[in-house]
Amino acid sequence: MPSVRCHDCGRSFPFRERKRCACGEPLRFEPRELPRWPDSSNPGMWRYADLLPVDAPSGIGAAAGGTPMVRTPRLDVGGVRLFLKDEGRNPTGSFKDRGSAVAAAYAAENGIDRLGTVSHGNMAMSTAANAAGAGLDCTVCVPSDIPEERLSHIARYGPEILRIEGDYGRLYEASLELEGIEFVNSDTPLRVAGQKTVALEICEAFSPEIPDAIVLPVSSGGQLSGIWRALSELREADLIESVPRLYACQAAACAPIVRAFEAGEESVSAVEGGETIAYSIANADPPSGNRALGALRDTDGGAVAVPDEETRAARKRLAREGGFRVEASSAVAYAGLERLVERDEIASDERVVTVLTGSGFTESDGAAVDARTIPLDELADRFGRSA
Amino acid sequence: MPSVRCHDCGRSFPFRERKRCACGEPLRFEPRELPRWPDSSNPGMWRYADLLPVDAPSGIGAAAGGTPMVRTPRLDVGGVRLFLKDEGRNPTGSFKDRGSAVAAAYAAENGIDRLGTVSHGNMAMSTAANAAGAGLDCTVCVPSDIPEERLSHIARYGPEILRIEGDYGRLYEASLELEGIEFVNSDTPLRVAGQKTVALEICEAFSPEIPDAIVLPVSSGGQLSGIWRALSELREADLIESVPRLYACQAAACAPIVRAFEAGEESVSAVEGGETIAYSIANADPPSGNRALGALRDTDGGAVAVPDEETRAARKRLAREGGFRVEASSAVAYAGLERLVERDEIASDERVVTVLTGSGFTESDGAAVDARTIPLDELADRFGRSA
Ligand SMILES: [Zn+2]
Ligand SMILES: [Zn+2]
Repeated sequence: MPSVRCHDCGRSFPFRERKRCACGEPLRFEPRELPRWPDSSNPGMWRYADLLPVDAPSGIGAAAGGTPMVRTPRLDVGGVRLFLKDEGRNPTGSFKDRGSAVAAAYAAENGIDRLGTVSHGNMAMSTAANAAGAGLDCTVCVPSDIPEERLSHIARYGPEILRIEGDYGRLYEASLELEGIEFVNSDTPLRVAGQKTVALEICEAFSPEIPDAIVLPVSSGGQLSGIWRALSELREADLIESVPRLYACQAAACAPIVRAFEAGEESVSAVEGGETIAYSIANADPPSGNRALGALRDTDGGAVAVPDEETRAARKRLAREGGFRVEASSAVAYAGLERLVERDEIASDERVVTVLTGSGFTESDGAAVDARTIPLDELADRFGRSA
Repeated sequence: MPSVRCHDCGRSFPFRERKRCACGEPLRFEPRELPRWPDSSNPGMWRYADLLPVDAPSGIGAAAGGTPMVRTPRLDVGGVRLFLKDEGRNPTGSFKDRGSAVAAAYAAENGIDRLGTVSHGNMAMSTAANAAGAGLDCTVCVPSDIPEERLSHIARYGPEILRIEGDYGRLYEASLELEGIEFVNSDTPLRVAGQKTVALEICEAFSPEIPDAIVLPVSSGGQLSGIWRALSELREADLIESVPRLYACQAAACAPIVRAFEAGEESVSAVEGGETIAYSIANADPPSGNRALGALRDTDGGAVAVPDEETRAARKRLAREGGFRVEASSAVAYAGLERLVERDEIASDERVVTVLTGSGFTESDGAAVDARTIPLDELADRFGRSA
């Protein structure tokens, strides 16, 4: 039985004995061993199977991770050399597949029949797909007012869908206490264990050098704190000489981690979240907020809040100048990078990885379409015909 | 200047001098050299850059190909061992990115400012995205009655969109004659050159063995004939001992290649196409149909027509038992495999690759969503709560 540890107070527990540490902080798996660059022919993230609490599975879970990191000089900001880590290339279109794949493999290995999740977006699709791929049942809990269209994306994978009447916010913790089902919410240990692999991929690609900074959108804080752990372990194993600075980007309408960082506070307090197009990172009370705050300070990084109009512009620029169709939440990170460069927090000769956490294929941009109608015969007039 | 060759009558021409051979058949690039398994650190399909008419680019085009091939035993049909080649993992969600990436790289290398395409589906998105990524302008010609929703997916990448009034079928050939723009329609040489790389990836993954058969959905026939060429070249280079059988799957409502194959005809004639949910492969007059027919016969393969109800069931099974969300056109190939196994055209111990050509993220399945509403407090009753 692998154990989980609280990186705040240091206590350890057998996995699944407790959902959170007695001190209230999230618990994380201890790595099986310190990382090394693997000599593995496993596909995608399973290249790092030795560092994960489960063995590599078959099925769609085997295809998670291994996403491309793409240089597109046209998208550089100032003189910063930008590398886009395209997590939208995961099986269901977001970084969530890394954690879902670990969770599904764990459940299948341990005779757990059913995965659950509290989500109405990427995590719901990802959990349902990975459960299906591992032959598990799945329950997805959504808010009762979820738009029908978003529901249809989740329903494609056939999970049981429950619209929950009542305080959806309370459901995050309440669901973790249920029996006969393994809930893999956004900062649970199995999920974060999988999400750490994105940091391993980034650092291995730069090895023996490192990027100067990693910029990413932040919601629960689970992904950011997982990346921080992975970087710390790489440093401890002497695989990297120093740790890249970490920068958290949030939507201005709901930015509890940015607020706490800027105010110099010790911990993250819940905010009254407003509406934002980046709904999938609008977490007003992030369960791993304190760990995320620690990651930003420990790495000498920072935090930036982005208004929706800049997110819209960033999303448009990524698609029209780079060919990257991303969801609003990912565009927040590119818009955040623009702000960070403007503020000189990132210098013009630095190499920066921005994580595009999810593709925008299931998200509309609501923009009007500009299309003209012309008769076929006028096409030649428009372009000229070869002789 | 690379040359293109007609594999029917054998004539060669400098590329871009002619759009088709004088005999009416499509033209294909001659390979720079016979294939070998490369020792390359290029990402994705650019591993095979030496075999392509362009060098590896930067930007999103660099991220095309290199898609996972996934074993999911639960999806095996009869005793057939199925490998799913998940082309939906390309940057814009379909195999079209392989060809678009080559076309965009070629245009950028050769001072061509604008790419064009005649498409209202995956190829339109893919061409627009790859043009954007290479800093090129792009014109997409769509039928005047295209649904607004599909248009919005294309518009995200910012191409000029022209709704064409008149005979959309005539546009395929007419567009190739235009000047000042490089149209990369479905079976043009640049596109097919890129699409060949999927066959290289499949065979290299199996090397030194080969799969017994490759099953894929077929529309223009360009992809199938490209795969056939690639396999022939691999055989000629002694990298494979024999050539896998090729099977073409079409929607029953529009199956000119299947019809010609079954009737034992020498060439493919246009059919009166009917409505099908697999609209993106409903090509009633496939420009590379004769080459496709040759591929099926030369490899001792076959052809199968699939009614929409079987396609719907296959799409559902892939998602609910495998976690693969695919578009209807890809599900046609899985449904086709089921028919081929039933007919004993594929034997129960064989290893078969089925190409899932496109993800279903921009396609609705029109299915009703089954979701129940329950109060938060009843969730514990539903599952039980841990002590
Ligand atoms: Zn603690
Ligand atoms: Zn000819």
